[in-house]
Amino acid sequence: MSKEVVLSIDIGGTLTKVGLVNREGKVLDKIVFKTDAQHQFSNFMDKLKLEVETLIIKWIDVIHILSIGVGAPNANSYTGQIENPPNLKWGGITPIKKIIEQTFDLPVSLANDANAAALGEMLYGTAKGMKNFVALTLGTGLGSGIIVDGKLLIGEHGTAGEIGHVNVDPAGRMCNCGLQGCLETYASVTGIKRTVFELMADRCEDSPLRKINFEEMTGTDISDAALKGDVIALTAFEKTGEILGSKMADTVAHLDPEAFILSGGLSKAGDILLKPIKRHMQKRLFNAYKGKIEVLLSNATSAEAVLGPAALAWLELDHLTHA
Amino acid sequence: MSKEVVLSIDIGGTLTKVGLVNREGKVLDKIVFKTDAQHQFSNFMDKLKLEVETLIIKWIDVIHILSIGVGAPNANSYTGQIENPPNLKWGGITPIKKIIEQTFDLPVSLANDANAAALGEMLYGTAKGMKNFVALTLGTGLGSGIIVDGKLLIGEHGTAGEIGHVNVDPAGRMCNCGLQGCLETYASVTGIKRTVFELMADRCEDSPLRKINFEEMTGTDISDAALKGDVIALTAFEKTGEILGSKMADTVAHLDPEAFILSGGLSKAGDILLKPIKRHMQKRLFNAYKGKIEVLLSNATSAEAVLGPAALAWLELDHLTHA
Repeated sequence: MSKEVVLSIDIGGTLTKVGLVNREGKVLDKIVFKTDAQHQFSNFMDKLKLEVETLIIKWIDVIHILSIGVGAPNANSYTGQIENPPNLKWGGITPIKKIIEQTFDLPVSLANDANAAALGEMLYGTAKGMKNFVALTLGTGLGSGIIVDGKLLIGEHGTAGEIGHVNVDPAGRMCNCGLQGCLETYASVTGIKRTVFELMADRCEDSPLRKINFEEMTGTDISDAALKGDVIALTAFEKTGEILGSKMADTVAHLDPEAFILSGGLSKAGDILLKPIKRHMQKRLFNAYKGKIEVLLSNATSAEAVLGPAALAWLELDHLTHA
Repeated sequence: MSKEVVLSIDIGGTLTKVGLVNREGKVLDKIVFKTDAQHQFSNFMDKLKLEVETLIIKWIDVIHILSIGVGAPNANSYTGQIENPPNLKWGGITPIKKIIEQTFDLPVSLANDANAAALGEMLYGTAKGMKNFVALTLGTGLGSGIIVDGKLLIGEHGTAGEIGHVNVDPAGRMCNCGLQGCLETYASVTGIKRTVFELMADRCEDSPLRKINFEEMTGTDISDAALKGDVIALTAFEKTGEILGSKMADTVAHLDPEAFILSGGLSKAGDILLKPIKRHMQKRLFNAYKGKIEVLLSNATSAEAVLGPAALAWLELDHLTHA
């Protein structure tokens, strides 16, 4: 008998990951290719078609693909479109759900990448069994997915959960989105890098980070320096944790979640980031929440990025079955 | 045939309102009495019992009371308790649901007062027909109720929707809750009064408000002065609108609602408050939300405070019927 799977497509600004995932969240196989987001969308679709066909041919005798889950930046579940993505140069509106449906002749479920990641955490990850939590992906930007009562919070226009764009400082850093002082300009890999450069300007301590230019500096450079006791790097983590922890207290005042699940490049720093986040969040929590909200690191490796869109597809299949 | 009604109890820091409300939201009768929150809870219950009995005796031949809805500050739907209310001197924990159930031998639904108000707006008020909105009550404090997909957002611990305690300024005004810089210390009747006093200290313009002491100054004094063109009062509204509008943009980045519904003393100022709120919210909205979020004034008069707990009771009855 053939195995039932979904085809999971996680579209990122840099890489696109495609996987075959069964109901239990086991990734049977996967491929990764460059999104080449600076080229036209039709180029991307040509590549995607080729890569998916290669993958399917390998497994054709043993699998049965039920549907496709797609996670993408600035994707809107209601409209089925990718809308005004700052990091994909595909133009304003891309009706991606329809195009992928037509290309592969399978039903497609679409969600914002961070929203899909939250579903992945709930079905297969750190949030297994939780009904109210917030997943934060701290990568190039800050993505968020909000789960309320076991369901993704989608909102009236399909675009809930943009916590990366709450305001930290109206006179603060310029954001790619056009606003100023957005949380993701502080609390993300790019954000902590900006903080490191600010600190190198403000302070006098020596630091290995002074030898790396802005374009080349990675989050790993900063966490490696912090682990070796570098003052600039440690101060950058402290500041990042203070800003993120404080804003997480505001999120709690809206949603009263059980936990936050952190993933993405910045979260790999572990305790160096987690401790200041927890301390500052706790300090700013309204009485009713104090001591009740957990902050956890995702146990999913980046290799499991396909689990988010897979969870989306499986949940949609179950919903259709039960409706 | 007797009319089916619910008994609605809205407990406030100053006044308690009790009403008989039918399914369509018609208030058949109501009474108002002083909560006397500085005395013991047992005193309050003696008074409530007497007032409710007086009300019921009047209507006993024509009504059938199905259940009781209770809205109260710091009430928790999950535990059935009022928990650590700063404005009711009844001690830390009051198991009010159980006590009212035993007193009147009827099922009781309990919710935070602002949460109940949001349900009232949805069933009978300005938010009729909406499925995703946020109700803000701008009174002594700032209460909030969040509706997601037609249901009250309750949260993991029963205490979601404390938007009055998101942070405006970590070094800002002291809040009754023990934190510093909470939104309600700026955006409420008390908040705008504090802003007026700050402005009278900072600036030199004459103002009728300089003749009123802190304890006696009301929200109406401030809006009356603003309507007559008083610079201090107008600046206070502008600042209040700027702070509230900016924070509402952060709320949108979480929830993507259709609208905000404003009620309470401060909202009576109308356009003087609404215009700066809308302008500043719009300025801070993330692209995906721009031009999509309405800000509306509640059409409910304060006389209709009983509609919130009534809506709660009717929704609970319908839920039980359908379960």
